[in-house]
Amino acid sequence: MILELTGSITNRIFFSGESMDKSAIPTPALLIDIEKVDDNIAQMANFFQHTTAHLRPHFKTHKCLPLAQKQIAAGAIGMTCAKLGEAEILVSAGISSIFIANEIVDPSKINRLAALARQTELIVAADDPGNLCGLAKAAQAAGSVIHVLVEVNVGLNRCGVAPGVAALDLARLTAELPGLHFAGLFGYEGHTQFITDIEQRCHKTESAMHELTSTADLIRQAGLAVGIVSAGGTGTFNISGVFPGITEIEAGSYLFMDSKYQEMGLPFRQSISLLSTVISTPTPQRAVIDAGMKAISLDNGLPKVISPGFVALRALHEEHGLLEVDLQAPALKVGDRVELVPSHVCTTVNLHDQYYVMRDDKVETVWPIEGRGKFQ
Amino acid sequence: MILELTGSITNRIFFSGESMDKSAIPTPALLIDIEKVDDNIAQMANFFQHTTAHLRPHFKTHKCLPLAQKQIAAGAIGMTCAKLGEAEILVSAGISSIFIANEIVDPSKINRLAALARQTELIVAADDPGNLCGLAKAAQAAGSVIHVLVEVNVGLNRCGVAPGVAALDLARLTAELPGLHFAGLFGYEGHTQFITDIEQRCHKTESAMHELTSTADLIRQAGLAVGIVSAGGTGTFNISGVFPGITEIEAGSYLFMDSKYQEMGLPFRQSISLLSTVISTPTPQRAVIDAGMKAISLDNGLPKVISPGFVALRALHEEHGLLEVDLQAPALKVGDRVELVPSHVCTTVNLHDQYYVMRDDKVETVWPIEGRGKFQ
Repeated sequence: MILELTGSITNRIFFSGESMDKSAIPTPALLIDIEKVDDNIAQMANFFQHTTAHLRPHFKTHKCLPLAQKQIAAGAIGMTCAKLGEAEILVSAGISSIFIANEIVDPSKINRLAALARQTELIVAADDPGNLCGLAKAAQAAGSVIHVLVEVNVGLNRCGVAPGVAALDLARLTAELPGLHFAGLFGYEGHTQFITDIEQRCHKTESAMHELTSTADLIRQAGLAVGIVSAGGTGTFNISGVFPGITEIEAGSYLFMDSKYQEMGLPFRQSISLLSTVISTPTPQRAVIDAGMKAISLDNGLPKVISPGFVALRALHEEHGLLEVDLQAPALKVGDRVELVPSHVCTTVNLHDQYYVMRDDKVETVWPIEGRGKFQ
Repeated sequence: MILELTGSITNRIFFSGESMDKSAIPTPALLIDIEKVDDNIAQMANFFQHTTAHLRPHFKTHKCLPLAQKQIAAGAIGMTCAKLGEAEILVSAGISSIFIANEIVDPSKINRLAALARQTELIVAADDPGNLCGLAKAAQAAGSVIHVLVEVNVGLNRCGVAPGVAALDLARLTAELPGLHFAGLFGYEGHTQFITDIEQRCHKTESAMHELTSTADLIRQAGLAVGIVSAGGTGTFNISGVFPGITEIEAGSYLFMDSKYQEMGLPFRQSISLLSTVISTPTPQRAVIDAGMKAISLDNGLPKVISPGFVALRALHEEHGLLEVDLQAPALKVGDRVELVPSHVCTTVNLHDQYYVMRDDKVETVWPIEGRGKFQ
C-alpha cells in the first residue's frame, strides 16, 4: 500500500503504483464496489436489449464522468441530467445526446443552453409557452437547435401540463417556433417509484404511462411526429420500460441502490457505502462515528449499518453518528471502522467530492464527482 | 451590471468592475447580506468585550476564509472547527490558534494533525487514553506540541467522558505524555441550544456548565493548570459565556441565523437566504422552484419562504421545491424569484460552493466556501 497525501489542503489522494488498503482510507468516505457497479450496469443494459425502449441513465445520481462513460459503453443512448451545469460537464467530456429533465427558464441560462446546443443534441423539458418562446429566440440567436420534450404531469403533481389537449397545444407551439425541434413527451411517474406492493406499483405506473402514451397518440393524430416518449426511474424501469409507446427510461439509482430502493424487490446489488471511523466510545453501549448528516443524507430516514453487525445507528448529528452497541457483542473500539448503506443515494452522493473505487476490498482508484454542486 | 460567465464548466462568476444585479444571479444561489453579517459579528464581539470568556467562532457554519478573517479582526481569539481538513484550510490562510472540537483518531490523520501543529497553536478534543498515546507519539515524531482539551459529557450524551474523576484521569495522562499539552476542558451543551423556554434553557445550560467548571476545579485541586474551559453555541452564548469559569465560547450560527435559531429570541439578524427561480406554474395554486434538498437542507424541517409573501413551501424534492400559492394573491409567473430562509444553516451551507455577497440588493462579490467537503 502506497498512499501519498499531496498537499494537506486539497485532501486529494493520489496513488503511486499499488492499490491502497481499505483501512488507509480517510473517513468519512464514499466507497463504490466497482464489480457490483459493473454488474448493475450489465443487468440494466441486458434488460434494454430486449425492449423497444432505450436507456438514458440519470447523471444526477452519480455525477461522475467515468461512470457515465461506462453506461454509454454498455449501450445507453445518451444521458439524462437535472441541471444545465450538469449538462455542461457531460458535454465537456464529449458525451453526446443530453436530456435535461427540467425546465430552464432564466435568460442567462437559456443563453448557455442555446450555446451548448451547438455542440451536441441537447434536449430540454418545457411546460410553458413563454419559456418556449425564450428558448426559440436564444436558439435562433445562437444558430442552434434546441430539442424539446413537452413535460406532462402523469400524477406526480410537480411540473408538467395536463395530459391531452394542453400538451398538444404546447407541442404545436414548439413545432411552429424556429430554433426548436418538437422531439416528444416527458412524464416522470415519481409518485409510483416507491410503492412496495408490486401489483399496485404496476397498476399505478401503467395508468401513468397510459396517460403519457395516449397524449403522444393525440399529438400524432394532429400530424406531428413524436420521436421520444420518456419516463421511468429505477423503481419502475421494468414496468414503464416495456409499456408500448415508451421509448426512453431515465433510471439513475440502479447503479448504486440504497436502503429505500432495496425494499422494492429490484434485481440490482447494493454497490455504494459510506465508510466511517469510531472516534469515541463513551459507554459500553454507545459509540460515535465521524460521519454525520454532512456526509450521509437523512431525508429517507436513518442510514443502516452494514458492518459490524452488532451495532445500529440511532441518530445522526451534523458531524457525528451515534451508534447503539449490542452488549452481548464484542465492544467497539476507538479507531474501528463502521460501514453504512445510504437511505437515499442521490442526496448522499451530493455531499461528496470523490468516490473510492473498490475492487476486492482495495482502493483501485479515486474518481472525482465532477457534477457535484453544478446545480446552476 | 456586467456579468461574465468564464467557462461553462466551472459556473464560477467573475466581475469586471461593476456589481451584479440580484436578478442576474443564477439559481439556486446562497446569498449573504454583508451588512447584517457585519452587524452580527459586531453584536457578538461587543458581548464578549464585557465578559471574561472569549469568542472562538465555529468555522463549520460558514466554512469561508474571508468570514473567518472578519471574525478574527473583530476580536475572536482563534477559530473552532469540526474537522482536520477544515483546520488545514484555516492554517493555510494564516489563521492561528485553531481548536478542532472533535476527536482525531485515524493514524494518518493524527500524523497530519501533528504536522499541522508545527505551524500554529493547534488544540484538539480527546476522550480516550489510547487516542492520547497516539497523539503524543505523533507529536514527538513531528517535533510539535499538540494542545489537548479533554472532552466532558455535560449532558448531550455524544462524545466525552463523565464529569469528575474520569476527566481528571485523562487530564493527568495528557499532562504526563510528552508531545502533549493539557490545555483544559471542552463540554458542548448541544442538548440545551434549542430549548425555547428561556428560563428552562438557562437552568439546563447552567447545570451543564456547573458540571464542566466543577470538573475544572477538581483538576486544579489535583495540581494541574486548566487554561481553557470551552463550551457554548449560538443558543447559549449569553448563558455559558457569562458562567464563572468558562473561558471560551464556540458559537457559529449567530453569523447567519436560520429559522430554527430565530425561535430562540436571540439578538442576531437573519443574514443568509437561498434564492431560487420559479420554473413551472402548472396550476394557479402550484408553482415549482429550481431548489430542492440538494440546495437547501431539510433536517430541521421545511425552509420558509421570505418573499414573495403570498406563497408557502409545501414540499422539497431532490431538485425541486413545491410552492402553494394563495389564490387571492397575484399569480406567480415562470421566471419569478423566490427567496427562502434555511431551517438549518450549517447543513445548507454544506451544499454550496460559493456565497453571493449582497450589499443594497446588489452582488458585491462572490466568496468561495473553501471548507465545504473538507470533512476528512
